[in-house]
Amino acid sequence: MNKVVQQIKRADPEVVAGLGACGVATVHEAQGRKGLLAAYMRPIYSGASVGASAVTILAPPADNWMVHVAIEQVQAGDILVLATTSSSDAGYFGDLLATSMQARGGVGLIIDAGVRDVRDLKEMGFPVWSKAISAQGTVKETLGSVNVPVVCAGALINPGDVIVADDDGVCVVARDEAVAVLAKAQARLASEEVKRQRLEDGELGLDMYDMRERLAEKGLKYE
Amino acid sequence: MNKVVQQIKRADPEVVAGLGACGVATVHEAQGRKGLLAAYMRPIYSGASVGASAVTILAPPADNWMVHVAIEQVQAGDILVLATTSSSDAGYFGDLLATSMQARGGVGLIIDAGVRDVRDLKEMGFPVWSKAISAQGTVKETLGSVNVPVVCAGALINPGDVIVADDDGVCVVARDEAVAVLAKAQARLASEEVKRQRLEDGELGLDMYDMRERLAEKGLKYE
Amino acid sequence: MNKVVQQIKRADPEVVAGLGACGVATVHEAQGRKGLLAAYMRPIYSGASVGASAVTILAPPADNWMVHVAIEQVQAGDILVLATTSSSDAGYFGDLLATSMQARGGVGLIIDAGVRDVRDLKEMGFPVWSKAISAQGTVKETLGSVNVPVVCAGALINPGDVIVADDDGVCVVARDEAVAVLAKAQARLASEEVKRQRLEDGELGLDMYDMRERLAEKGLKYE
Amino acid sequence: MNKVVQQIKRADPEVVAGLGACGVATVHEAQGRKGLLAAYMRPIYSGASVGASAVTILAPPADNWMVHVAIEQVQAGDILVLATTSSSDAGYFGDLLATSMQARGGVGLIIDAGVRDVRDLKEMGFPVWSKAISAQGTVKETLGSVNVPVVCAGALINPGDVIVADDDGVCVVARDEAVAVLAKAQARLASEEVKRQRLEDGELGLDMYDMRERLAEKGLKYE
Amino acid sequence: MNKVVQQIKRADPEVVAGLGACGVATVHEAQGRKGLLAAYMRPIYSGASVGASAVTILAPPADNWMVHVAIEQVQAGDILVLATTSSSDAGYFGDLLATSMQARGGVGLIIDAGVRDVRDLKEMGFPVWSKAISAQGTVKETLGSVNVPVVCAGALINPGDVIVADDDGVCVVARDEAVAVLAKAQARLASEEVKRQRLEDGELGLDMYDMRERLAEKGLKYE
Amino acid sequence: MNKVVQQIKRADPEVVAGLGACGVATVHEAQGRKGLLAAYMRPIYSGASVGASAVTILAPPADNWMVHVAIEQVQAGDILVLATTSSSDAGYFGDLLATSMQARGGVGLIIDAGVRDVRDLKEMGFPVWSKAISAQGTVKETLGSVNVPVVCAGALINPGDVIVADDDGVCVVARDEAVAVLAKAQARLASEEVKRQRLEDGELGLDMYDMRERLAEKGLKYE
Repeated sequence: MNKVVQQIKRADPEVVAGLGACGVATVHEAQGRKGLLAAYMRPIYSGASVGASAVTILAPPADNWMVHVAIEQVQAGDILVLATTSSSDAGYFGDLLATSMQARGGVGLIIDAGVRDVRDLKEMGFPVWSKAISAQGTVKETLGSVNVPVVCAGALINPGDVIVADDDGVCVVARDEAVAVLAKAQARLASEEVKRQRLEDGELGLDMYDMRERLAEKGLKYE
Repeated sequence: MNKVVQQIKRADPEVVAGLGACGVATVHEAQGRKGLLAAYMRPIYSGASVGASAVTILAPPADNWMVHVAIEQVQAGDILVLATTSSSDAGYFGDLLATSMQARGGVGLIIDAGVRDVRDLKEMGFPVWSKAISAQGTVKETLGSVNVPVVCAGALINPGDVIVADDDGVCVVARDEAVAVLAKAQARLASEEVKRQRLEDGELGLDMYDMRERLAEKGLKYE
Repeated sequence: MNKVVQQIKRADPEVVAGLGACGVATVHEAQGRKGLLAAYMRPIYSGASVGASAVTILAPPADNWMVHVAIEQVQAGDILVLATTSSSDAGYFGDLLATSMQARGGVGLIIDAGVRDVRDLKEMGFPVWSKAISAQGTVKETLGSVNVPVVCAGALINPGDVIVADDDGVCVVARDEAVAVLAKAQARLASEEVKRQRLEDGELGLDMYDMRERLAEKGLKYE
Repeated sequence: MNKVVQQIKRADPEVVAGLGACGVATVHEAQGRKGLLAAYMRPIYSGASVGASAVTILAPPADNWMVHVAIEQVQAGDILVLATTSSSDAGYFGDLLATSMQARGGVGLIIDAGVRDVRDLKEMGFPVWSKAISAQGTVKETLGSVNVPVVCAGALINPGDVIVADDDGVCVVARDEAVAVLAKAQARLASEEVKRQRLEDGELGLDMYDMRERLAEKGLKYE
Repeated sequence: MNKVVQQIKRADPEVVAGLGACGVATVHEAQGRKGLLAAYMRPIYSGASVGASAVTILAPPADNWMVHVAIEQVQAGDILVLATTSSSDAGYFGDLLATSMQARGGVGLIIDAGVRDVRDLKEMGFPVWSKAISAQGTVKETLGSVNVPVVCAGALINPGDVIVADDDGVCVVARDEAVAVLAKAQARLASEEVKRQRLEDGELGLDMYDMRERLAEKGLKYE
Repeated sequence: MNKVVQQIKRADPEVVAGLGACGVATVHEAQGRKGLLAAYMRPIYSGASVGASAVTILAPPADNWMVHVAIEQVQAGDILVLATTSSSDAGYFGDLLATSMQARGGVGLIIDAGVRDVRDLKEMGFPVWSKAISAQGTVKETLGSVNVPVVCAGALINPGDVIVADDDGVCVVARDEAVAVLAKAQARLASEEVKRQRLEDGELGLDMYDMRERLAEKGLKYE
């Protein structure tokens, strides 16, 4: 039952990069408000943002053996996405594993558990979004799987899906929707630029979005 | 039942600014240790501090329609204070709304829910204290109210009350107590300055506050 | 029953400093993965790290009287470790107490409760690891004890034990194990340096740690 | 600043009892979906329900002195409502205080903190809705207030307000709205009785509430 | 994007019933320790157990419109499984909806949000496993979907999957694995019966499972 | 480092039983308000109470191997106390292990993790106080220790200490203090019986405990 899928499809690197540049909030909206991981997933340092292809890990609690297995499957531009079979906040990942990831071109980690060596990771420029920061060591005793579908922090993630992460959190885009979502996200950014200028000039959202009539219909009273 | 109160009284701008300069811990003490919002209300970036007048919002879960309504009521020096009718950590507020707030002179947001675009907000210098950071989008379907009394993160806040917020959290001062609280807060700061010097010089709190006798009376034993 | 133990044994200052330099994750591993405080103990600002001797406090909820008592027991290189008799997130400690600590050579605070004036503490370079940040004031009404064994954030800490804390959290080393743990921690660091170089050069953990055979024995399948 | 208000107005006992009989969900709806305390307030045993007038307590953390003060203010049909000035889960209340309450005709306790002796309380038929169950003892050192407005579990409660509590949680009705809310609640119950019969007979909510057209307008697709 | 899938495949009713009779812990083990929903999903009353086919709902926060839509899709032996697009603990479901469910042969509800009228539901024998109990009312403003794949409390659930729920929590079995899992679960129950007898007779697990040698190999010391 | 201590001292069985009969709240008070485990430790069914000698287990996360090892060390009147080396809510214990415990005269389980088969355990009359209820399976891969000191739910527990547990939670009494604590607890119960009668007769705590003068001194005002 425990397996490593070695051949996965990834989205086009330019599409992946483009989604990363759009950011989590925009991509989440562009794909119909889905794909967001739980809000408890926070970056270990602020200011990082990534667009990357998911290499997924399903790991036992407090056992990081499968991380080593997964790194062999990582290509340039990939990000590890680790879900656990049972709740854990142990520290599965630290600076040595990040060194190995960077040697292969891996760009980050999404983990529904804990991470450690966070100061080193920050200095290395290796971003992590995690449920916890914890030095708690893990073992290498029990198998899991690599590149199988996982539910990570409440979101279903398939290997090769596009991960977008920044200070707002983490969002997943299905691989085969990536091109379409990117187009919508870029259109949304362009449209927002126009709105931003109008709002800066003092126009109200009430007017820009024509809300007054509908508010009145719903019964809003001004006193 | 859903209404927007357009005329609210605010405290004197100099008093508001003075309270902001005193900071949360001092103001909270000066007014008899009341008015503190729950400790889960955290700034989205460190180093910001504000003193501002509250424009309050009572909003449905995951519905930010009333934020647009509220911004029309904002004057220079105001801060939005959003409470929800039912628990939510969705992202009610982002960089476009912040742009609109800044265009009107609004100085920040206190929200018992989520916020997004936090890197943009930091770059804009628009501080937010929130329960969560989340990109989760909201709808514009259900009315709420603006400038009614709200319970936000466990504290009762009336429109026009003074909000003081910094890295320690958020505190509310009733509008008609603002002058008196400011006087006490400033006196406290002056008194603390003297104490700080004595402590720096090596005097112990045990002696400076005359605690030894009372500790002995209570039965503290030294071994 | 409430007492202050005035004579406590401390580890050798060089050993304490050495442990601090090794960091939490390494020390935790070196001593057999024990001694870690709960992951909810977070630094109030990033980048700080300490190795220090524990002066322990057992305090009532929302009552910081014993902090004043404890500071008299502090020597250069000590850190306060505060546990409560009943859960509290009130703000027991702020800039005045930190001033007093620094005047005596104290280097930080570990507190299973709240702290305030966090911006001042950051500017003073006084690190704190806490459960909460809260301006909530405390009283001085009920006795506790100083320099007794305490359970702080799930870890047993005796007075004079060595505290190691950094961005990964907090770890305690028993005083009489400090020398041995330091030796193991330094050996571990040396060994990690070699591994880091190999990983940087592209070697996989799978090979460096000889994992492939055991993975196959356990039944891992590659597809 | 610490005071005991001895004269409070209460709603008519028949109105209070009537609201209690309607139950939390119905009363909450009848008054426009407000007044609900946070969902973490749970009964210590199932099956109890009350309608009662609030005698409010604002108490320090882990200090139950004011409970004794409040009981003197209790009349037949009253319920204690305790909020704390700082978060606590200590056990403020047990079987002796419940005995005293019952001797005065008091009917229960709503407490945003902890309670103990819960098996005894169940046997006595003294219902409590609390944030926690904890044997942790409290002190009698610091004053609070009795019969002042409090924010309890996120809801504003004034002395003399009507408390409705059952297995669904706790709801507060403002004293001067009690008569009107009761009328609406009873009308709602009558209307629900009709609906229940129709649903039992197999009619769908989709038809009974005429939802199909609006769903189609909104764009719902059937496949 | 919002849709209702009307034709779903269900597992054989005898298989569904058989899985329900095996219970959550056994079924979870039998299918390789997968499919468990998060431990915060608790029954509103103890003693209930179900095996049923999932009719899934993806609903907006605090909006129960789709529950009405879903009930039309319910057949005898079905259970509703509700996930939200954004975190909510509002009370989506009460006794009227349960009446409608029972009229159609529906047997329960799994909801990653809140439920109300819990005493009535208990009296009706309508079991619910939920994240919260809350009287908080919901609206009918925003569409969701029915019978689409959902992630509910961390588990992926497809329409027609088999839900097993009892006092231990909730587990999902993929529809097309149901027959195989049932066979394994029943074999496991039979095997456990033998073990139970041996343990009752005083045999130790250490001996029954032949653990002593492996413990010694791993290095366990007896003192 | 992993060991099983086979010889532990236990308190006198009559003393253990006597403490159990006094209950958690009384014992906790009698020993100076210490020894209480965290309030999140809840019984899996209400109405159970125990006094028993602790056989302690330090176990890895989601690994219940040491439970089997510990049961061999159990004598009549013992209770298992399980702490983990890293946070876990997996289901370490179910009906088979309880059968084995009962065969040896073991009377219950205190576990800072999860438990399953809770309906069976209730029917067997085998009480458990746990952090979670979860069917999540565990492995048998990593050693821990038996009968070493552990920190369980925030309390230090040595093997052979007396555990008292009931609907109020769990309390530990050090073995060598058990006789003295029992005497104080029984005296406390006798004294409470007198107070209960006086309170039933309508006397107020304010008068029975002579509180009025001290309240006035502290400045309490009656309005």
